[in-house]
Amino acid sequence: MALIKKPVTGMKDILPREMQIREYVTDLVVKTYSSFGFVRIETPAVEHIENLLSKQGGENEKLIFRILKRGEKLSLTPDTKEEDLADSGLRYDLTLPLSRYFACHAQELPMPFKALQIGPVWRADRPQKGRFRQFVQCDIDILGEKENIAEIELITATTTLLGKLGFRDFTVRINDRRILKAMASYCGFDEADYDRVFIILDKMDKIGRDGVREELLDSGFSQDCADKYMELFAQDLSDVSGIRALAEKLQDHLPEGCAEGLIEIVESVEKVKNAAFGVVFDPTLVRGMSYYTGTNFEITMNEFGSSVAGGGRYDDMIGRFTGNSVCACGFSIGFERIITILMEREQDGLYGAPEKYAYLIEKGADAAFVADVMKQAQAARSEGKTVLVSMMNKNRKYQKEQLEKEGYILDNIKEFYHSEFKR
Amino acid sequence: MALIKKPVTGMKDILPREMQIREYVTDLVVKTYSSFGFVRIETPAVEHIENLLSKQGGENEKLIFRILKRGEKLSLTPDTKEEDLADSGLRYDLTLPLSRYFACHAQELPMPFKALQIGPVWRADRPQKGRFRQFVQCDIDILGEKENIAEIELITATTTLLGKLGFRDFTVRINDRRILKAMASYCGFDEADYDRVFIILDKMDKIGRDGVREELLDSGFSQDCADKYMELFAQDLSDVSGIRALAEKLQDHLPEGCAEGLIEIVESVEKVKNAAFGVVFDPTLVRGMSYYTGTNFEITMNEFGSSVAGGGRYDDMIGRFTGNSVCACGFSIGFERIITILMEREQDGLYGAPEKYAYLIEKGADAAFVADVMKQAQAARSEGKTVLVSMMNKNRKYQKEQLEKEGYILDNIKEFYHSEFKR
Repeated sequence: MALIKKPVTGMKDILPREMQIREYVTDLVVKTYSSFGFVRIETPAVEHIENLLSKQGGENEKLIFRILKRGEKLSLTPDTKEEDLADSGLRYDLTLPLSRYFACHAQELPMPFKALQIGPVWRADRPQKGRFRQFVQCDIDILGEKENIAEIELITATTTLLGKLGFRDFTVRINDRRILKAMASYCGFDEADYDRVFIILDKMDKIGRDGVREELLDSGFSQDCADKYMELFAQDLSDVSGIRALAEKLQDHLPEGCAEGLIEIVESVEKVKNAAFGVVFDPTLVRGMSYYTGTNFEITMNEFGSSVAGGGRYDDMIGRFTGNSVCACGFSIGFERIITILMEREQDGLYGAPEKYAYLIEKGADAAFVADVMKQAQAARSEGKTVLVSMMNKNRKYQKEQLEKEGYILDNIKEFYHSEFKR
Repeated sequence: MALIKKPVTGMKDILPREMQIREYVTDLVVKTYSSFGFVRIETPAVEHIENLLSKQGGENEKLIFRILKRGEKLSLTPDTKEEDLADSGLRYDLTLPLSRYFACHAQELPMPFKALQIGPVWRADRPQKGRFRQFVQCDIDILGEKENIAEIELITATTTLLGKLGFRDFTVRINDRRILKAMASYCGFDEADYDRVFIILDKMDKIGRDGVREELLDSGFSQDCADKYMELFAQDLSDVSGIRALAEKLQDHLPEGCAEGLIEIVESVEKVKNAAFGVVFDPTLVRGMSYYTGTNFEITMNEFGSSVAGGGRYDDMIGRFTGNSVCACGFSIGFERIITILMEREQDGLYGAPEKYAYLIEKGADAAFVADVMKQAQAARSEGKTVLVSMMNKNRKYQKEQLEKEGYILDNIKEFYHSEFKR
């Protein structure tokens, strides 16, 4: 019986051209983040099912690829339930494994610890265009630093990287979960309803203030609360004076130092930056993950609908492993999104090797002749050139066309004829 | 309830120092193999269970991590059997996925296709020291090239890489599955018994000729066969004249061109090589995988017991997907083994970045001062330096000791005191 040629549903094979771009981006990521003192680490693809299902992952927990128990541990009886079948699963993000990693190895790591992770994660999402069930995430995290130098470094490193990737005119949006909560508290919402309220607020950029107000009312919230809430957004709050004005209104609802910290971050990023981008306060920014405890940030570009990076502070997750909380702050670029954008740019030359040669050898040439050609190729390679050695196909013209597609220019395709030497 | 800190059984977290060596090796692999015209590709970690269980993987098929079906597809009734539970699994090698990949995408790929793969595979092996359930494989394969230029290129590329990694005095051992079969046929073994015979022959380097002879007899093979078999190994066959002598004895049992091809490979590799190593014919070399159809090769080093690379020709596997057979030949380095060897060498400096600076800022410095230091750091980074910016810990001495462990030399750790400027 013939085997199955296509990859499994929702996952993809990576063809050489895309791979070249992925390698280019990965190299740039590693070089840039390393220059900020981030060090690369890796965790296994497989995690304990108990950790994966510990409510750190929100909706992602529904999308876990679970791995069957093995050997005697898998006993199938009429009473067996679904949850008895799996003891592990594929990681759905890099944040939970990082927290486990740090909890396990803190003794061997510098403090604060600046980690860089680049690796695949898996989510059994409904397959759709441009969205795959295996995809690469790329995260930087600073663990054990409670000062806002962590946020400033993360934002500076990420914007430096985006600049090097050729992105311009992007915007860093910053908010703080504690401001979100203070606004909701100021307006009289019940704490139990905050998450529902934030999900509606998050739609502000799409449906506007009136839309949000209407949806709040539709969801059964009081007119008083909704009106007071929308009143907060009546003026432009996007710069430092906006943060100050909002803080003055919210007063005791806001923890001490929260607004001041945010102002420092915005001002410092502006001062340190060496790429063209803006930094704004966005009090409607709601990052989906419930583990965030403080600042939140996101980078958007006008050209592209969704964000290209996102992150924030999550001071409680590592404590779930150790009992002692360790502060933590991370920023994740949308690796796959960036690859898609670069693929569309079609700047082939940018990612290729500079000097690629192909040596084609006449079919039927004897072994000594072939070895001679290969010896020449070895000499060229030791000078840093790329040399592909191949036998000539029957259809030489087609072979050359194919090679040109692979980036071998015609001048650099050399033919070696044994027969000429024989004559 | 506290979460689980350790990685899942048999898998490991990679600490910064090991990661640095892994990145160094990966870089060198990519650069070296690229210079031979190999192009990097990737397949998903998850494969169809039907493909994984198609008998290409031998013993490895018993070690598959199987992935639970999801949603409605997973229906648990009292009749459910184990094989009903999984629709996919984690790949146990890179060769089967490559064959699927080529079968699926041949139209978009150059021909012959020279592929480089570096990626994790998973096997639920019994955990033991130095052996993990997730480990990286690193394969080069040439698909669609039936001439022995494929073998010569694979061996030259692999030995060039090992040379660059600092390995010396290794030995390339070559054999051919057709010679193995011809020897067994010449001695009168039944074709059905070949695999059993080869498993015993494979022990030659450990138990010697007498040991192999004894084990053959113990396994019920006839004295005639065993004697004739061991007689073949009475003389040294390890060089080209050995191949010739053996071929003369085996005569019609050996397919035409087989011995000549092997001689060409040995002579060409000798001629082309630019690293210090030997090439020998080893008629006792048996590579475990049953999918091999022709040449087999392995690289061993006296310092290390087991091999550091292995491969061979497998002309039938891709045909299992397409119905049309495509010839294929591959070589795989023992990535994890090489990492272990380099870790033991302790050449820390070799893999680090050349210029690493740490800027430590006094605790309590105001935001403007912190931003100033970060601006200086950004300027140094744009000159290619690595600059870690961090707040000073309470225990500054310990912090510096930690940084020294991370490769920051004391001269390059600078302290920035706000208070000095205040005064």
